[in-house]
Amino acid sequence: MSNHVVLTGDRPTGCLHLGHYVGSLKNRISLQEKYDCFIMVADIQALSDNFDNPKKLAENITEVCKDYLSVGIDPQKCTIFIQSLVPELFELSTYYLNLISVSRLERNPTVKSELKQKSFSSSITAGFLAYPVSQTADITAFKGTLIPVGEDQLPLIEITNEIVRKFNKTYNTDVLLEAAPVLGKVQRLVGIDGKAKASKSLNNAIFLSDSSELIRQKIHSMYTDPSHIKVSDPGKVKGNVVFDYLDAFFDDKNELDSLKLQYKKGGLGDSVLKSILNDNLQNFLKPIREKRDSISDKVVFNILYEGSKIARKVAKETLSQVKDAMGLVYKYD
Amino acid sequence: MSNHVVLTGDRPTGCLHLGHYVGSLKNRISLQEKYDCFIMVADIQALSDNFDNPKKLAENITEVCKDYLSVGIDPQKCTIFIQSLVPELFELSTYYLNLISVSRLERNPTVKSELKQKSFSSSITAGFLAYPVSQTADITAFKGTLIPVGEDQLPLIEITNEIVRKFNKTYNTDVLLEAAPVLGKVQRLVGIDGKAKASKSLNNAIFLSDSSELIRQKIHSMYTDPSHIKVSDPGKVKGNVVFDYLDAFFDDKNELDSLKLQYKKGGLGDSVLKSILNDNLQNFLKPIREKRDSISDKVVFNILYEGSKIARKVAKETLSQVKDAMGLVYKYD
Repeated sequence: MSNHVVLTGDRPTGCLHLGHYVGSLKNRISLQEKYDCFIMVADIQALSDNFDNPKKLAENITEVCKDYLSVGIDPQKCTIFIQSLVPELFELSTYYLNLISVSRLERNPTVKSELKQKSFSSSITAGFLAYPVSQTADITAFKGTLIPVGEDQLPLIEITNEIVRKFNKTYNTDVLLEAAPVLGKVQRLVGIDGKAKASKSLNNAIFLSDSSELIRQKIHSMYTDPSHIKVSDPGKVKGNVVFDYLDAFFDDKNELDSLKLQYKKGGLGDSVLKSILNDNLQNFLKPIREKRDSISDKVVFNILYEGSKIARKVAKETLSQVKDAMGLVYKYD
Repeated sequence: MSNHVVLTGDRPTGCLHLGHYVGSLKNRISLQEKYDCFIMVADIQALSDNFDNPKKLAENITEVCKDYLSVGIDPQKCTIFIQSLVPELFELSTYYLNLISVSRLERNPTVKSELKQKSFSSSITAGFLAYPVSQTADITAFKGTLIPVGEDQLPLIEITNEIVRKFNKTYNTDVLLEAAPVLGKVQRLVGIDGKAKASKSLNNAIFLSDSSELIRQKIHSMYTDPSHIKVSDPGKVKGNVVFDYLDAFFDDKNELDSLKLQYKKGGLGDSVLKSILNDNLQNFLKPIREKRDSISDKVVFNILYEGSKIARKVAKETLSQVKDAMGLVYKYD
């Protein structure tokens, strides 16, 4: 096992879906074999967008953890924990807030695009602006050196490393470690409507916990090629959601290539194609769903509490090193 | 004893001086008789300006506490504690950051004047911007309802109360209490140079811990009336630092009035006047200095640790109420 530490996680805003599986969960299942992995259920991070509905987060913590376990993330191999149960992260954030300027945080593209979307720039909260600082606390607390991210999160890792360097330089130490982003191969899965990335809020995703019938219905409603009307018509593969999903989940690539050829030429109807995908995804999701159903809330909470204890021990140690480096230590004997 | 709770304190950036005495310490000595008082040595708050030198803060924590004890602040009557030893404050701050916009914090006059002073607006740190949020955590953690402040801090209390109302409204609760500012009567003491408020950084203050000889020298160098050259010359009382100090510390107001009359008319020399102030301040500061010298570091740390334990218990209880109100509670039985 390498010396690298992986930190990753999800905001508990809802159940996880195939987009999460393709974009991150699959990757974690292999990362846990090679590295020391911390997987964080990021309730505090989620609060910055959901401060008016924390109950939603509390409700979804078990769901997210069940999703983890059902796809094969193994609590014996990695530490799954709840962010808010590691309060040392709050203290680290506070120290880091002094090491970055407001204008630097405002140059974060996520903030910029949020400001563009909102009519008043005034409406972004201080918590939203400070979110990359909080993420820096998360990464550094566990000495995370490999951070699986999407392209859009690369600027956040830059901010993390700027704070790390500033801290180490200011306090003449090497306590904090810089983190390297790990970009996954398949980064996005399109929604069943073909319009955008699969997401809970757009209601265009197939969830790991969806029933067999619901999966069938969602596949049935998938966007294909609107000009492919008769079975004999030639159809487009590109932009065809069914093929996007087959690309992600159908293992026999030779057979998939011949399906694509046939579809392009004409003679392969959407309903046959969709039933191929249905068989494929039903087979894939059935054991996941069965495993998921077999996990009790009690088991999930035990895993989360035990993981949070381990995570807290690590974060405490880092915080202690951080305060030592700063000279913010009061001991009287 | 009233139900009000007072929160006050100082940044441990140096020893306290007569300006602090007149502006806040004197007031606290009477407040502690009437109210439940929490006096915070604000190391974390001081970090936002001193992040590059936390050791200075660590060194001055005992000095500030000795100053408190030497003037009669009584740890039996109030809770003296170190801010960083109450980590619940970090967590409260994090929750409050989501309840206030960046632009609201940028309208804080302290931030505005800081931006004016600096050539690049970019140079203010996120910690500096977020400071009123951190102060809101301090005030609300102890359910502070009376906050002794100077005029310049009134906008900060406004921000605190905005966050309190936003929290209570968002989470449909009355857990947090609004705070009322208490403006002291004498709010400022001029420096011995007559140019600005007495302050450590301008090196124009008389410290509670100054030696008898140093006090004498500082009084000797005080700015008076530059046109009052001969003893027989009429002199100005207004803007005359010696009279400012006599106003603050000389108890016999009738005698002080006749001194002023005589000075205005002519016939009272600066050296006689300064020796009157010297007698006055030596008498005032001698018992303070003697008490201060008698207090060991060990005693001071015991007081601070015991106080911090009490403060932490109160803050924990508030944090628990806050998380309950938010619904950010995970309990599994």
